[in-house]
Amino acid sequence: MQAAAYHNHRTSSTFLARGGRNSSKNRSGNFTVRMGLKEDGPSLAVVGVTGAVGQEFLHVLSDRDFPYRSIRMLASKRSAGNHLTFEDKEYIIEELNEDSFGGIDIALFSAGGSISKKFGPVAVSQGCIVIDNSSAFRMEEGVPLIIPEVNPQAMDHIKLGSGKGALIANPNCSTIICLMAATPLHRHAKVIRMVVSTYQAASGAGAAAMEELELQTREVLEGKEPTCKIFKQQYAFNLFSHNAPVLSNGYNEEEMKLVKETRKIWNDMNVKVTATCIRVPVMRAHAESVNLQFEKPLDEDSAREILRSAAGVVVIDERDSNHFPTPLEVSNKDDVAVGRIRQDVSQDGYYGLDIFVCGDQIRKGAALNAIQIAELAL
Amino acid sequence: MQAAAYHNHRTSSTFLARGGRNSSKNRSGNFTVRMGLKEDGPSLAVVGVTGAVGQEFLHVLSDRDFPYRSIRMLASKRSAGNHLTFEDKEYIIEELNEDSFGGIDIALFSAGGSISKKFGPVAVSQGCIVIDNSSAFRMEEGVPLIIPEVNPQAMDHIKLGSGKGALIANPNCSTIICLMAATPLHRHAKVIRMVVSTYQAASGAGAAAMEELELQTREVLEGKEPTCKIFKQQYAFNLFSHNAPVLSNGYNEEEMKLVKETRKIWNDMNVKVTATCIRVPVMRAHAESVNLQFEKPLDEDSAREILRSAAGVVVIDERDSNHFPTPLEVSNKDDVAVGRIRQDVSQDGYYGLDIFVCGDQIRKGAALNAIQIAELAL
Repeated sequence: MQAAAYHNHRTSSTFLARGGRNSSKNRSGNFTVRMGLKEDGPSLAVVGVTGAVGQEFLHVLSDRDFPYRSIRMLASKRSAGNHLTFEDKEYIIEELNEDSFGGIDIALFSAGGSISKKFGPVAVSQGCIVIDNSSAFRMEEGVPLIIPEVNPQAMDHIKLGSGKGALIANPNCSTIICLMAATPLHRHAKVIRMVVSTYQAASGAGAAAMEELELQTREVLEGKEPTCKIFKQQYAFNLFSHNAPVLSNGYNEEEMKLVKETRKIWNDMNVKVTATCIRVPVMRAHAESVNLQFEKPLDEDSAREILRSAAGVVVIDERDSNHFPTPLEVSNKDDVAVGRIRQDVSQDGYYGLDIFVCGDQIRKGAALNAIQIAELAL
Repeated sequence: MQAAAYHNHRTSSTFLARGGRNSSKNRSGNFTVRMGLKEDGPSLAVVGVTGAVGQEFLHVLSDRDFPYRSIRMLASKRSAGNHLTFEDKEYIIEELNEDSFGGIDIALFSAGGSISKKFGPVAVSQGCIVIDNSSAFRMEEGVPLIIPEVNPQAMDHIKLGSGKGALIANPNCSTIICLMAATPLHRHAKVIRMVVSTYQAASGAGAAAMEELELQTREVLEGKEPTCKIFKQQYAFNLFSHNAPVLSNGYNEEEMKLVKETRKIWNDMNVKVTATCIRVPVMRAHAESVNLQFEKPLDEDSAREILRSAAGVVVIDERDSNHFPTPLEVSNKDDVAVGRIRQDVSQDGYYGLDIFVCGDQIRKGAALNAIQIAELAL
């Protein structure tokens, strides 16, 4: 039944829709404002508010009716002074500095790792709960790395109003999307090994990368040389190994995030993960082919039932009509979609499954997950 | 050194270049004709000459200077009567029928499984060596399934001039591209399990699918509803599970080809393979993420050396510059490119490797492989 909702929004413009509308109009075209502005709500700060994830923070806050008594819109010097309308109220974007966090209860960071490293601890020292979308603190001991549907207990000790600052890390987008589907199965049969191949969207590299993909595609169709600024090679009608730096073991950083973050989130240092991360010419949703090996047997029908009842997951697995998750169908959606659920023919008995997962990179892969973390702290 | 050749041909039009020029001009723009027309060459027939692979047959015959004394150009009734120029000689396309194979030594079939089933045995009964690009006979006992670099010995008994007809099957494109890279490693350390995720181009569904991807992309960029004729869903800026029918075990036919054809080509009924086949918005080259598990240890440096000296394989594995194989770089190329060669961190010791492979689907994935088979029969 849930899957039916995914059949809508198939217009060609859906995938191009992204944050940046700077208005209270929500994406369904409905102007009814669900105002989260409340006297007794926390004071918020959004760091990196002009970016793709920063803009999505605002959309998600609005969509979820997140309570707040004030929001400070923070960005770099370049954007400071610009105006921004959110939920019918006008804001002036302020330049991020060490004094930005006075009186702020919750700060949502998405302005890159170096900004988080510099200003995250400053905010925490002023009693702020920082939810950081960068990789700066994810693997640091004592910093909870949270997917609310997966390991909310790891931040049980952090509550708004305790007067104590804290830093919580938002996992990498590929990790979130993968574990949203793998965790319910892991709880039942314990995943011992996972082989992941990703199909990652432009949005993971920011709004400029999405624009470059669009521009390049136009250029290629016109027979022109494609403009390569964000990526060093043609992206339109092409794909390439993820642009993250390659480490000495031959894995790139994006892949090692999947390896290491999974261990931390599952609190299981023995789970074996390998990943190959590839950028594909898709706008804002990631797909992942995930091969699972279990300690205990798990048949595909049970797996499907487990996933159907998992929070934040929608099963799209219609073999007869060849209807399975696609990036386009999950774009601008909250749920992670999973399909192609089948017993792995390369593993004996019922110890292996193959699944295919899609999730909106900007939303559940970043902004939504961060705001769900904030909700846990309320 | 080989990799350097891959740096050229990066114009935006490269990926769109495809068969169908109907002239003797080769793709480098050079009009010098390497004429394969020879009195003592075999007589050829190309079945499905107007299709993407049929056209590529002609390109490859020309590029490789394949000897022939005549070529019969065969297609459906719709194309019959049309003219076609090949190596400075004009041909009239003939309608395929039961009398098409009189006096033909070698017939290259690429007109779909039902045409192969109907006319393949007819041609064989008339003493013709049929090289069939469809899946019709691949798994049939006694029909060699050949990748010339991998298992040429399986067709040792088939030689032109013996007077006996024979049928040889060309493997599925994904299988060819995967095994071009996996086989040299298999020979050294014996692959016991392989987990494959594919990133497949439009060309695998024919020239019309390539045109649909191009048309849809234009439409989406113009804000129009995309035309869905070949595929039932939006392909532009999207990806989806391969359109092959899904079988009762949940795998689609494309995936089971990888599973079954690998066993037959390696003559190893015990090798375990699982695959997830995904169509991505790329024109004519497939990519595959391949996770390998070996019986004997194999370190990544040895693997790289083995692949560097493998016929028909080029290694592109430059970690510092993040330069690895891409579909665009292998488009219109003969060699299969392999990179991202690394020891799998999810397997103990040296028993696992991850690799990433790209190959031109129309060329090595179909036409080139078929003509290499024909060369073996000469």
